[in-house]
Amino acid sequence: MSNPIEKLIDNLCKLPGIGRKTAQRLAFFIMSMPEEQAIQIAEAIINLRKKARYCPVCFNITENEKCNICSNPERDHSIICVVEEPSNIILFEKTGYKGTYHVLGGNISPVDGLTPDKLKIKELEDRVKTGQIKEVIISTSPNTKGELTAQWIADLLKKYNIKISRIAYGLPIGIDIEFADEVTLSKALEGRKPLNV
Amino acid sequence: MSNPIEKLIDNLCKLPGIGRKTAQRLAFFIMSMPEEQAIQIAEAIINLRKKARYCPVCFNITENEKCNICSNPERDHSIICVVEEPSNIILFEKTGYKGTYHVLGGNISPVDGLTPDKLKIKELEDRVKTGQIKEVIISTSPNTKGELTAQWIADLLKKYNIKISRIAYGLPIGIDIEFADEVTLSKALEGRKPLNV
Ligand SMILES: [Zn+2]
Ligand SMILES: [Zn+2]
Repeated sequence: MSNPIEKLIDNLCKLPGIGRKTAQRLAFFIMSMPEEQAIQIAEAIINLRKKARYCPVCFNITENEKCNICSNPERDHSIICVVEEPSNIILFEKTGYKGTYHVLGGNISPVDGLTPDKLKIKELEDRVKTGQIKEVIISTSPNTKGELTAQWIADLLKKYNIKISRIAYGLPIGIDIEFADEVTLSKALEGRKPLNV
Repeated sequence: MSNPIEKLIDNLCKLPGIGRKTAQRLAFFIMSMPEEQAIQIAEAIINLRKKARYCPVCFNITENEKCNICSNPERDHSIICVVEEPSNIILFEKTGYKGTYHVLGGNISPVDGLTPDKLKIKELEDRVKTGQIKEVIISTSPNTKGELTAQWIADLLKKYNIKISRIAYGLPIGIDIEFADEVTLSKALEGRKPLNV
């Protein structure tokens, strides 16, 4: 086979959930689609990496200095919903939640080298320290790592005079939060309870 | 959410088998991977579309005037294995097949607007007309459209003094040929039989 197609297949294999067969199918499709559309995909990747950055407040993805949510005066800046990844924000936004977010960048998992200092936990504490936060809703996944992370954060923040809550178990236990639908998420947010600390 | 990430998600959704959730996961992964690696994916797409083209003989993908196979004097240029897509060639190459190929660009499917003139069937006949072809092995999928296409081509080529064969049914009937492994393909090639015309 010719080189450029193999090179693209190799590159696509670096993406999560894309095995060699899928990468092949995608590469040949990219070869067969209108050239303009193929180039648009490439440009969207370049554009993302050249223009987008992480919000210095909440670590959401943004094109601007601060993200849309942190810079929106209509949001309730005294509530922080703590999530694992920027993609989780898309889900919570569909529930009608009006507070702000804080993206950890994953869950604590010492076996994977993800110690608390590798996540944006210190930055969360810094936000709480300002005294302007009334409630932190910990919305990590309802699985072992998510629970560990939730408890760690609750223990860390218990010395501050704020409400610390955990998203309610409207979610089936053991799944990744990414697979929850917006209705379940909405119910789970409503039913949030203070954490034992 | 910020614009560049949504733009990339929209673009990734144009790829086959990539739904919105998968596109989101990929886009956020592309945001989190080392910038250099992300840019490499984009450049591999651009490189493919700028450098690769279809071989004018067999319609395989190539960087050069003719593809690696058509320009290789070690191959048997009197045998043509007729396939649906360039990606099928990767599979047949693993079987040790030493002839050449002809990529149709799909199967005949009038309901999808794929009439015989939309495929590279005339170009296949032109190759046969040169008098230098001894055998055409029709290796379309063992399903309705693949069979229809095989029979159509066999009827078209029966007036030429060549052997026309159909890849043997070592393959489970009804699947797409793309999902066959190389051992099955190899057996199916060996067991090829003349078509009734
Ligand atoms: Zn922000
Ligand atoms: Zn060729």
